Amino acid sequence: MSLSVLFAAGAEDWPEYQPALMDAFADAGLQADLATEAAPAQVDYIIYAPSSTLQDFRPFTRCKAVLSLWAGVERIADNATLTQPLCRMVDPALTQGMVEYVCGHVLRYHLGMDAHIGARAGAWYPVVPPLARERRVGILGLGALGAACGQALAGLGFAVHGWARRPRQVDGLACHHGQQGLRDCLSQAEILVTLLPLTENTENLIDADALALLTEGARLINPGRGGLIDDPALLAALDKGHIAHATLDVFRTEPLPANHPFWAHPGVTVTPHIAAATRPHTAAQVIADNITRAEAGQPLLHLVDRIQGY
Amino acid sequence: MSLSVLFAAGAEDWPEYQPALMDAFADAGLQADLATEAAPAQVDYIIYAPSSTLQDFRPFTRCKAVLSLWAGVERIADNATLTQPLCRMVDPALTQGMVEYVCGHVLRYHLGMDAHIGARAGAWYPVVPPLARERRVGILGLGALGAACGQALAGLGFAVHGWARRPRQVDGLACHHGQQGLRDCLSQAEILVTLLPLTENTENLIDADALALLTEGARLINPGRGGLIDDPALLAALDKGHIAHATLDVFRTEPLPANHPFWAHPGVTVTPHIAAATRPHTAAQVIADNITRAEAGQPLLHLVDRIQGY
Repeated sequence: MSLSVLFAAGAEDWPEYQPALMDAFADAGLQADLATEAAPAQVDYIIYAPSSTLQDFRPFTRCKAVLSLWAGVERIADNATLTQPLCRMVDPALTQGMVEYVCGHVLRYHLGMDAHIGARAGAWYPVVPPLARERRVGILGLGALGAACGQALAGLGFAVHGWARRPRQVDGLACHHGQQGLRDCLSQAEILVTLLPLTENTENLIDADALALLTEGARLINPGRGGLIDDPALLAALDKGHIAHATLDVFRTEPLPANHPFWAHPGVTVTPHIAAATRPHTAAQVIADNITRAEAGQPLLHLVDRIQGY
Repeated sequence: MSLSVLFAAGAEDWPEYQPALMDAFADAGLQADLATEAAPAQVDYIIYAPSSTLQDFRPFTRCKAVLSLWAGVERIADNATLTQPLCRMVDPALTQGMVEYVCGHVLRYHLGMDAHIGARAGAWYPVVPPLARERRVGILGLGALGAACGQALAGLGFAVHGWARRPRQVDGLACHHGQQGLRDCLSQAEILVTLLPLTENTENLIDADALALLTEGARLINPGRGGLIDDPALLAALDKGHIAHATLDVFRTEPLPANHPFWAHPGVTVTPHIAAATRPHTAAQVIADNITRAEAGQPLLHLVDRIQGY
């Protein structure tokens, strides 16, 4: 019998995802009717993105799981109508893309590239950067993305300090946890990368106090969630020069409005939410894999803890 | 009995190298008189850089080796008065610094960073870059530097093609050699990194023909030797747009004169010969190690083949 799979995401995603999902279902041997509309009581699985208008999950009485296309689930995790299991997207291609973005921007800061890009004629100041092993990078968040980025940076030689709320062990990283661990990690960091989920515990975590703990002249890279940063506090720390530069990929409002001060600030580079893109081809395989598991009675992968919110 | 070691390099290097060498000699248990002047017939070893005025090696009749502080030896290798063994610098810190520079600039091109750095307000164009595994990087030269850079790039996921004049095998890289191999490697490369020694065979290797073989819109990174590049041919290829951008760290004349067209060209980033810096601390250890070997009758490391010129 064929499964009913509802694709509940923005209409703009459908042309890319429809063939990718059909291929992945066929490869997995799944018989599935994939559609953007279906009778709620007949739906077996919902593929979901916050760009969908779907907000009330109560009519989906036989739905066995809601499978998010996004790694961040803060816009659905606290939806009280959602009683079905919710799975985050953990796309290996998304992780790899994030690793490339983070390594690239950490090396950019480490090497002082911006001074060379567009230097004026004759600006020959051969200041040799320290080696990566002399550069301390902090990573907040040691989930799939944070751990992968930390290990790639350690592989490049950087001295990496990682922090998570609870004790975590990641090979090659000095791992910290808890409130004192957060202060220790921040006070080490010359370059800080924020890869935490957005929860009530992490919103505005990077506030004036946290920024003040960073090394004088520190750099900040936020490819995690816009809400992690207290925007006015970051602008004040940049103006003071305590934070030398920030590269931000995610914002409270996206696209970042053209009149937002981040655009004009010489200490800020805006990237347009490109660090953690879900790639349809690999994401479709992750979803097909999870449906196959559920149909075989195996536990779902990447299940969200609704209490923790991630 | 104490060894006489002559430091024949620029006077500006002495304050940094003197203590580093004395420490390294002490650590190695070497009794050595290190000086910037010495009676030639008494000198056991010469530590050399092309910034030295020393050009005639004939009076150094008991000198057992000339130990270069530089990786590139083209300015001394063909000196006919030099009959003593000549060793290149293979400093692990220099190699690591080169790896960081090359990975950083390859990721910069891969991620399209320049468009984000200093983008105008409101320029929100979320073009997601391909993954590194979909990006072909070519490396010309598979010596200590080229092999290390190629392996680091492969570790980041890039599809790396390497080329050397003679057959070489480097794990994780597709290796090419010879004339046809050079054409194959160039025609694959979306980003090309040149890490060859400068010899009569490699001078102007990157000429109009070589540039034409590269992928349309390719990027070039030259941290090797300025003479590898045919400068007017590169400028012409940039003007045509066949080469989208070049990052150059080394030049025929250094500092690069302020009126050189590379400075003003929007398609060129000039970095001031920082990719391959010898670090006094680690370089001194390499030199102490080689003297220790020679004194123990063991073969010298990093001996230059005077016929090949590297």
